[in-house]
Amino acid sequence: MDILKRFNQGDRMALSKIISYVENQSLDYRKVLAKLYPKAGKAYRVGFTGPPGAGKSTIVDKLTSLLVRKEHKVGIIAVDPTSPFTGGALLGDRIRMQNLTNQKEVFIRSMATRGSYGGLATTTKEVATVMDAFGKEFILIETVGVGQVELDVVDACDTTVVIFVPESGDSIQAMKAGLMEIADIFVVNKADREGAKRIVTELDMILDIRRKKGEWEYPILSTEAVNNKGIDLLLSKISEHKEFIIDNHIFEKHRKSQIKTDIKKIIEHRIRDFIDEKILPSLNLDHIADKILRGEDDPYSAGERILAQINITNSG
Amino acid sequence: MDILKRFNQGDRMALSKIISYVENQSLDYRKVLAKLYPKAGKAYRVGFTGPPGAGKSTIVDKLTSLLVRKEHKVGIIAVDPTSPFTGGALLGDRIRMQNLTNQKEVFIRSMATRGSYGGLATTTKEVATVMDAFGKEFILIETVGVGQVELDVVDACDTTVVIFVPESGDSIQAMKAGLMEIADIFVVNKADREGAKRIVTELDMILDIRRKKGEWEYPILSTEAVNNKGIDLLLSKISEHKEFIIDNHIFEKHRKSQIKTDIKKIIEHRIRDFIDEKILPSLNLDHIADKILRGEDDPYSAGERILAQINITNSG
Repeated sequence: MDILKRFNQGDRMALSKIISYVENQSLDYRKVLAKLYPKAGKAYRVGFTGPPGAGKSTIVDKLTSLLVRKEHKVGIIAVDPTSPFTGGALLGDRIRMQNLTNQKEVFIRSMATRGSYGGLATTTKEVATVMDAFGKEFILIETVGVGQVELDVVDACDTTVVIFVPESGDSIQAMKAGLMEIADIFVVNKADREGAKRIVTELDMILDIRRKKGEWEYPILSTEAVNNKGIDLLLSKISEHKEFIIDNHIFEKHRKSQIKTDIKKIIEHRIRDFIDEKILPSLNLDHIADKILRGEDDPYSAGERILAQINITNSG
Repeated sequence: MDILKRFNQGDRMALSKIISYVENQSLDYRKVLAKLYPKAGKAYRVGFTGPPGAGKSTIVDKLTSLLVRKEHKVGIIAVDPTSPFTGGALLGDRIRMQNLTNQKEVFIRSMATRGSYGGLATTTKEVATVMDAFGKEFILIETVGVGQVELDVVDACDTTVVIFVPESGDSIQAMKAGLMEIADIFVVNKADREGAKRIVTELDMILDIRRKKGEWEYPILSTEAVNNKGIDLLLSKISEHKEFIIDNHIFEKHRKSQIKTDIKKIIEHRIRDFIDEKILPSLNLDHIADKILRGEDDPYSAGERILAQINITNSG
């Protein structure tokens, strides 16, 4: 494969093409991924999430510049499954990010493919693996959205940064449950605005319940990303967290559980394809649907009858 | 089953309980659904979507009051998979809606369960089926969010209303592709605000490409839901669309394709459960993951080896 050779030589076009294979699930993408996988595993993955308008892109932008100044190779994945409505904002962010794309050490990919729902979290991880195999040392994954897919994406990262703005105050109580579980570092951006102190205090109170002596501190940082304030501290907290999770074997455990999830997803995906291609066409679904429409059958009973005919056995 | 008896007698508590079974996928929920399915199929499903703050709840609220005045039985499903961040707003909406819950003819259920992602669109349809079987004539499905799950939800409706506000102007170009496909009726709410005319003109230009003589007109309505302005017209456009799709056999085709999707989902769901319960535990995933972590294997090759051992046959 010529493209793999060029990829291994550091050809950005080859990287871009392989990412497209993975995104589009082109014919042999699993074989390509199988070849790249052993080269991956060195990059550190940092996820960024938070409500729209919190300044996630600006933070990722400034952090990338800082990492590049420290001679690190950076990959950025911007995930936006919440389009169509936020499409405008996304485009704006991408344009703003273009000053980064001119840098050799930085590779940016945005993923807003509507069709890939359900697999978006998986695809994002696979794209991260490709960038990792390419030699990126930091992979920054930014999710514009706020739903389950995005939480799955950042949950697959080694360190997760949740970003708020003073205006997010009201929503903090409501979102306690979901986000607190995945966040390692909290950032209150636009900290020069009114209400910034209040939101830090609120977060602090909530986090105190979670903090335990000798465990991770769950820091809350104040930043003004636009003015590059607080970005140095953010990077050092990310590094501290990295050290903490490696020393405490959390890193290894998390990666291992991610791998197991990956294998499960691969198996499920392939079996679903098999059902769609081999089982369903042999059934007269039209006829069944007609009967259901006439009230003579229902999808649940029909499903059970079909399932009763399918045998799955494990000969391993 | 005592609960089914009470459900058939019109007991709201029984309705509420059966919806909970479906949401939580409690043991026998498929059997219950199979029993209810033949009673369903009479309700008309209207989906409402649009960006946050567009006034979806207010429109659903006012439309419900109008339907009740016309002696219709109404079910409302409010879907919000975008929590945690929008959790606050959702609660506010629900509280505002409480004046409706006191009415015997109206049944409201909000669904914000984080865990049900992937199945949320399916669960919403199943809850709609339950309300349908209970005798609701209109089921109004409101999605607060803006992602793929929400689009799937409203796509399963008979008529889909997309709601904008004058402030949404900038995003219209960006979201052309996704929403135009699913929307039947466009509403510009808060039409007294600046920019309302511009957004109507913009929508009109985009829709003109889609409109064809003798086909559905894709109307754009201006409303001020808070002041109950435009709600009558919205209802009559929904009724017109209902007539149009029934007369043109679109209704039947759409329902049939939904049924086929339902059967596929039921089969996939059950097979996934089977893999999780019967296949995966017999594999030494821990051992495989360790090898992958050491760089001696990769998840894709491991997945392929496992799949090679699994036999699926269709004896039907």
